[in-house]
Amino acid sequence: MAENLKGAPVAAAITEDLVLRTEKLKEKGIVPCLAILRVGERESDLSYERGALKRCEKTGIAVKQFILPEDTTQEDLMAAISEMNRDRAIHGCLMLRPLPKTLDEKAACAALEPKKDVDGITAGSMAMIYSGNGAGFAPCTAQSCMEMLHYYGVDVSGRRAAVIGRSLVIGRPAAMLLMQENATVTVCHTRTRNMPEIVREAEIVIVAAGKAEAIGAEYFREGQTVLDVGINWSEEKQKLVGDVDFAAAEPVVRAISPVPGGVGSVTTAVLCKHVIEAAEKAAD
Amino acid sequence: MAENLKGAPVAAAITEDLVLRTEKLKEKGIVPCLAILRVGERESDLSYERGALKRCEKTGIAVKQFILPEDTTQEDLMAAISEMNRDRAIHGCLMLRPLPKTLDEKAACAALEPKKDVDGITAGSMAMIYSGNGAGFAPCTAQSCMEMLHYYGVDVSGRRAAVIGRSLVIGRPAAMLLMQENATVTVCHTRTRNMPEIVREAEIVIVAAGKAEAIGAEYFREGQTVLDVGINWSEEKQKLVGDVDFAAAEPVVRAISPVPGGVGSVTTAVLCKHVIEAAEKAAD
Repeated sequence: MAENLKGAPVAAAITEDLVLRTEKLKEKGIVPCLAILRVGERESDLSYERGALKRCEKTGIAVKQFILPEDTTQEDLMAAISEMNRDRAIHGCLMLRPLPKTLDEKAACAALEPKKDVDGITAGSMAMIYSGNGAGFAPCTAQSCMEMLHYYGVDVSGRRAAVIGRSLVIGRPAAMLLMQENATVTVCHTRTRNMPEIVREAEIVIVAAGKAEAIGAEYFREGQTVLDVGINWSEEKQKLVGDVDFAAAEPVVRAISPVPGGVGSVTTAVLCKHVIEAAEKAAD
Repeated sequence: MAENLKGAPVAAAITEDLVLRTEKLKEKGIVPCLAILRVGERESDLSYERGALKRCEKTGIAVKQFILPEDTTQEDLMAAISEMNRDRAIHGCLMLRPLPKTLDEKAACAALEPKKDVDGITAGSMAMIYSGNGAGFAPCTAQSCMEMLHYYGVDVSGRRAAVIGRSLVIGRPAAMLLMQENATVTVCHTRTRNMPEIVREAEIVIVAAGKAEAIGAEYFREGQTVLDVGINWSEEKQKLVGDVDFAAAEPVVRAISPVPGGVGSVTTAVLCKHVIEAAEKAAD
């Protein structure tokens, strides 16, 4: 039986630490504040927003919501971003994405102040993740993988890691964060040949393939730590499943995160951590 | 006998193409122009500058030199950068580095306009290299590796590549450029365990270890293409040597670039290519 790497205790530990840091900020007269920008009423956005609101309440973070209609104009969107940038009471901004296709998402991301960019969507944050230097934050989901590894005492330095997926939301930033902590990282993607063989070489595997239960037994061996970042609705099973075929991998590997209840459960805690960090930096 | 991947024919092919593109720009009344900023009289800077001047002459690129004394102030440095940014006749800027330690190099890099950043030193360029999107250029040496692979017909897509070194000048950007062309890339560094074994898995190896002849026979196998980016002065041999032990690697691998006369010979041609690209974009 593999160790079950649940997200809840990780999120709880982060939250506990953040409560203390919020108190310290409040003693200085600073109320850490997250702005959430949502366009339209998409169910996945609403559900993530609810989770973020709950976690902010637990950690003592104030929230300002900017809600625009589905058919909003680019002008109104940019005005909202500009207001979030200007408002000195706001320390971090979360823009729920993807935006409706009628809007220019690139321009919106570029307009956001990097030091308030708590989900790593600006060029400034990307340069920071890539170089290990500068202002900004890593995308919350990629950072959540690192928090999982730290909490569960998985030593990263000098270890071989494989990341499946090269997106800007998970694959690329996770690879850079692992390398920053001295892992030897291989990034696999849709064009990778012999992927199972390559993934079996790794001791730490982060899976963000974007395909339900696509990563089966042939990718795994004993001793591995596996983080499954995928979240997919299985019509067949009528439940949420990851990108890993959990039933096939679990008997083989040393440790694996479940879906749901794994990496995804840590994301809003990391979001709050980034807001507190931004508030602490602003207070310096 | 391995194929000898010389840089000169690659540089010549790039130069030939650039001459035509410069002519087209001049027909539109645009003279592509590179600004070179040098602080002090360091021999390695002077030698690179001479090479750049020669290549610019060949390709029809005008050069404006900004030369500051070794003991210049940060203020004068920033004023020079600001002048380069403002001057619309200048399309690309090369700042010879490292700057003297009395100066704040980070601030200097940050001040440079990303679209004129032909050597990939700004946050904007880094975000572009990392994401594959946006304004800016890759560092010339990393881009030179890709030019070598293209010229010599080395197929990158789907191939395994190992990059030894994770610097911002070569290792990281080379890894991102290889991934952009669909290679499966592993980045090795000082903390990597079993590095020879990992490097032997790769079909394409880019070596930027920063240590003379450190990468020996145990890293190689038949069929590999090896690019040696290192340039070191060997006291023992009284000549320039690479990071690869050439005599040990050459009988084993399929193809290898020599030092000197390999990747390093392509750098100024890539610099000129970036200047022309910047001028073409400015003309649009």
